[in-house]
Amino acid sequence: MPIFSTKFLTRITADIFSAAGMREDEARIVAKELVEANCAGHDSHGVIRVAQYLDQIAAGDIAPDAEVEVVRETPIIAVLDAHWGFGQVAMSRGVELGLAKAKASGMATIAVHRANHVGRLGSYVEHIARENVVAQLFVNGSPTCRMAPWGGREARHGTNPVAIAFPSRTGEPVVLDMTTSAVAEGKVRVARNRGEPVPDGWLLDAEGHPTNDPNALYAEPGGTILPLGGSLGHKGYGLNIAVELLAGALGGAGCLGKPRQFRNGALLLLIDIEQMVGLDAYFAEADDYIAFVKSSALAPGFDAILMPGEIELAMKKKRMADGIFVEEETWGQILASAKQVGAEVGEE
Amino acid sequence: MPIFSTKFLTRITADIFSAAGMREDEARIVAKELVEANCAGHDSHGVIRVAQYLDQIAAGDIAPDAEVEVVRETPIIAVLDAHWGFGQVAMSRGVELGLAKAKASGMATIAVHRANHVGRLGSYVEHIARENVVAQLFVNGSPTCRMAPWGGREARHGTNPVAIAFPSRTGEPVVLDMTTSAVAEGKVRVARNRGEPVPDGWLLDAEGHPTNDPNALYAEPGGTILPLGGSLGHKGYGLNIAVELLAGALGGAGCLGKPRQFRNGALLLLIDIEQMVGLDAYFAEADDYIAFVKSSALAPGFDAILMPGEIELAMKKKRMADGIFVEEETWGQILASAKQVGAEVGEE
Repeated sequence: MPIFSTKFLTRITADIFSAAGMREDEARIVAKELVEANCAGHDSHGVIRVAQYLDQIAAGDIAPDAEVEVVRETPIIAVLDAHWGFGQVAMSRGVELGLAKAKASGMATIAVHRANHVGRLGSYVEHIARENVVAQLFVNGSPTCRMAPWGGREARHGTNPVAIAFPSRTGEPVVLDMTTSAVAEGKVRVARNRGEPVPDGWLLDAEGHPTNDPNALYAEPGGTILPLGGSLGHKGYGLNIAVELLAGALGGAGCLGKPRQFRNGALLLLIDIEQMVGLDAYFAEADDYIAFVKSSALAPGFDAILMPGEIELAMKKKRMADGIFVEEETWGQILASAKQVGAEVGEE
Repeated sequence: MPIFSTKFLTRITADIFSAAGMREDEARIVAKELVEANCAGHDSHGVIRVAQYLDQIAAGDIAPDAEVEVVRETPIIAVLDAHWGFGQVAMSRGVELGLAKAKASGMATIAVHRANHVGRLGSYVEHIARENVVAQLFVNGSPTCRMAPWGGREARHGTNPVAIAFPSRTGEPVVLDMTTSAVAEGKVRVARNRGEPVPDGWLLDAEGHPTNDPNALYAEPGGTILPLGGSLGHKGYGLNIAVELLAGALGGAGCLGKPRQFRNGALLLLIDIEQMVGLDAYFAEADDYIAFVKSSALAPGFDAILMPGEIELAMKKKRMADGIFVEEETWGQILASAKQVGAEVGEE
């Protein structure tokens, strides 16, 4: 299995997207986000997407040269229309604008419309936290439904993730990045491909009965993914609705239930710590609290108490040092993609 | 069991707090919030608290005549010091200030420090939603810990509730109000008092093993409440940490882990819908989406698909019309409280 440096993987990925019609700086943003996902251990959101994105460009679903347009703006609000370009490009523009507004005024809200897949949410809020701004990010997606309402048996919800990050003075940022459904669809697919049952609390079959059979989700009529919460799933259902209404209605990207071209909609809220309570006051509470949580005795079967995002940040350090493994099939696809668009692969 | 109108219960409750040293308008705020909780069906947060609050005033823990002070302010940010007065009074002032700032500028963040019990969160965000502003409210509380970290067996977290509300044009607001622990401590106490086991996913014993015995929480050493999420409890744990850092560190009310006088800390975020995407665009998405969710076929054992807050709003209509039942013991305490402070009970 080939191992590559993040620098090389980012360069070749950027060159491919650039050759496929993107501006060089924007191709680099997409490449950076994909390789960053590999670094964090989320290979499903990493360079495995290169071939898929090229297919979407070829099909006309992604406009590689779309200009992100600010369609509504106040000193603390901006609404961006991605014009069906790359979600990563629109999100990076939104993060940059949001940071500038939050640093100037104390808060900001950024909405993103008509964007393709935005990738891993944690990356955006982590970047903002390192600037000593706390960010919340809510993302919905139309038109695919996978989750049933609490009390229902037909899919009416996406996996609707939420991410939020906080800086700490003595350690890495705390980065929460989670779906409000019990799990993402990809985890059910992995279980199905391996012929393994899924745990309790993940799935309902088409009749609305709990099931451990991953095939139930893909049957006709299909089953559904349960909301986060197990026997208290009405809470995950409520959170999922909140994400949909924040990104789709308040942000204006559009909610589920209407026939639509695939899109991610995003709402990003930023608060500048210095203008809220002052950095010293913030860190005096945050760092002590994190230490307090970690001081708990362990439960049976656990060997550490981790902050949200800690696994990903440790993995990132390791992969930045050791390089990123890319499985043969994915590497073959990347080589084919490079050939297809006429990009130079070059040397490590 | 006596039945009273909301008007009568509010009046007598306000008269008692007024006689106990509160300003008349502020006594009325506390009375309104308590009776509102009864209306919503949350009797545990209702007039049953009258005697307890009087005891806390007598003990010097609640300062009935404290002035809420704005200690930090910008056009879109305000930090309020409640000076150990009633949480409801500080929250009402924060809601009023936040609404004015959000209507003027598009967004606002309000933090509340050194407040006593703020009561039911849903009430504040519902009120804001009826003004066509979307609000998120995060509340922590020191010093009592009840929940263990994910992977731990010692209490390091509160129940850390979050509330968020959205208006709809054709129906009532959507009001989510939930703890990020599996359940609130009161529910475990009810099971213990009834001699009933608690469901799976609620509790760990002091050794960190799952248990259905509610007594485990109150043993010495004590057990802990699990985070929201069942087998995916790392997500509820992450949300709980986010609430603590939002209210305690970013808001500056103080986080768990330090020896402290009891307090609720609150962080309230408001976004004006009109300035974000416009009211018509918002309602066109929100109302259709709510109808879409409700159009799902039912799962076995359910007879309706409800929006968050729908049960409470239906209960409120019923109790506003039919009156509120107050059990004999609570009514006896209210009569004794009135006598103690020299308030006139009067007639319905």
